[in-house]
Amino acid sequence: MKILVLLSGGLDSATCLGLAVEEVGAENVSALCSYYGQKHSKEIECARKVAAHYGVKLIEMNLEPVMKFSNCSLLTHSTQKIKHGDYAEQTKEAGGKPVETYVPFRNGLFLSVAASIGLSIGAQEIWYGAHADDAAGSAYPDCSLEFVENMRQAIETGSGGGITIRAPFVNVNKAAVVKKGLLLKVPYELTWSCYEGGEKPCGKCGTCIDRAKAFAENGVVDPYDKT
Amino acid sequence: MKILVLLSGGLDSATCLGLAVEEVGAENVSALCSYYGQKHSKEIECARKVAAHYGVKLIEMNLEPVMKFSNCSLLTHSTQKIKHGDYAEQTKEAGGKPVETYVPFRNGLFLSVAASIGLSIGAQEIWYGAHADDAAGSAYPDCSLEFVENMRQAIETGSGGGITIRAPFVNVNKAAVVKKGLLLKVPYELTWSCYEGGEKPCGKCGTCIDRAKAFAENGVVDPYDKT
Repeated sequence: MKILVLLSGGLDSATCLGLAVEEVGAENVSALCSYYGQKHSKEIECARKVAAHYGVKLIEMNLEPVMKFSNCSLLTHSTQKIKHGDYAEQTKEAGGKPVETYVPFRNGLFLSVAASIGLSIGAQEIWYGAHADDAAGSAYPDCSLEFVENMRQAIETGSGGGITIRAPFVNVNKAAVVKKGLLLKVPYELTWSCYEGGEKPCGKCGTCIDRAKAFAENGVVDPYDKT
Repeated sequence: MKILVLLSGGLDSATCLGLAVEEVGAENVSALCSYYGQKHSKEIECARKVAAHYGVKLIEMNLEPVMKFSNCSLLTHSTQKIKHGDYAEQTKEAGGKPVETYVPFRNGLFLSVAASIGLSIGAQEIWYGAHADDAAGSAYPDCSLEFVENMRQAIETGSGGGITIRAPFVNVNKAAVVKKGLLLKVPYELTWSCYEGGEKPCGKCGTCIDRAKAFAENGVVDPYDKT
């Protein structure tokens, strides 16, 4: 069995990659990383380091032309600043709509690109590190269990059964992802989460707060705080 | 209501565009056309002419990097030749798998790109010209009613209800598409179908045969035969 893992360079996808390598061996795993105009493009450098750590082939795509029409605050060309504060607060403010850092159908796009490439390189499964915290309260609708199920069906049907999706963390929270990753010895010191993409994590954006909580719940110091 | 139409430069998508313009007016319609390494890239020039005919904005994307891993015979870099003969025969040969000119999850990729762009430009619907002939016998699984339904759900869910898909021809055959297009005065003389992408249509590939049949069933001479 061959697996193509969506790898952003962040914590969740690095854990997903670690799990895939444990399951089928590095020689049967490839990773896919995309630039899409994100301010925190340094996560791509992290994806390269994580892929190298595991000895898996990394395929890189440039999807920035697709996102150039969006004014999402996460994008370099956006006129909007990234909101600070935790997701629960931002989700409440968004009033049932996606939060401001939702990049339009980004994860659906990633999964479709992965389906095309996966079918071409002989992979049977696409692994995707979405987890329950990201989907909570419709913050990121393209992380929800329902979305993953819909997309899985679309990809299975549209590929004539050639490839499918597996999202091993879709029912658990970020703390559980970290728990699993610590057991797997995922190199979290190589990963990047902060949306600001500065020299050090800002500690104030939604994903910084989320990451800190996930490590705290495991009683572990986040290794990237030390760098 | 704003509509983003997938426009290949072929007959089906040109008809889809004609219908969208009739429904909401050219000022509320944009079209999306993608290069993906296809041998018949001259269809893109046709897409430009069709979009200009209707006075709608055309967005062009280059998705060739996604398809460079595939050896599908439709692609310029492929080592395979495009098979001749009609789809019924090719589908039989394929034995339940997609035919050789199936480009891996291409239409799913197009729809995802359209979802990202559509959300960004304020469109509420993506229109897609898939029809029943293309899906028959699993020749092109990414044209089937089931696929369109799955993808519609994935896009609605993953966008938080921001955008959806409409496939006006998914239940009818190509002859019915042409019938509708003739009523709408779709400029078929500007469209291109042949997979070979030569100076004139080859008349032997699946899509040439399909197109000829569709016009014949309407008792009309295909205007591109005259050029």
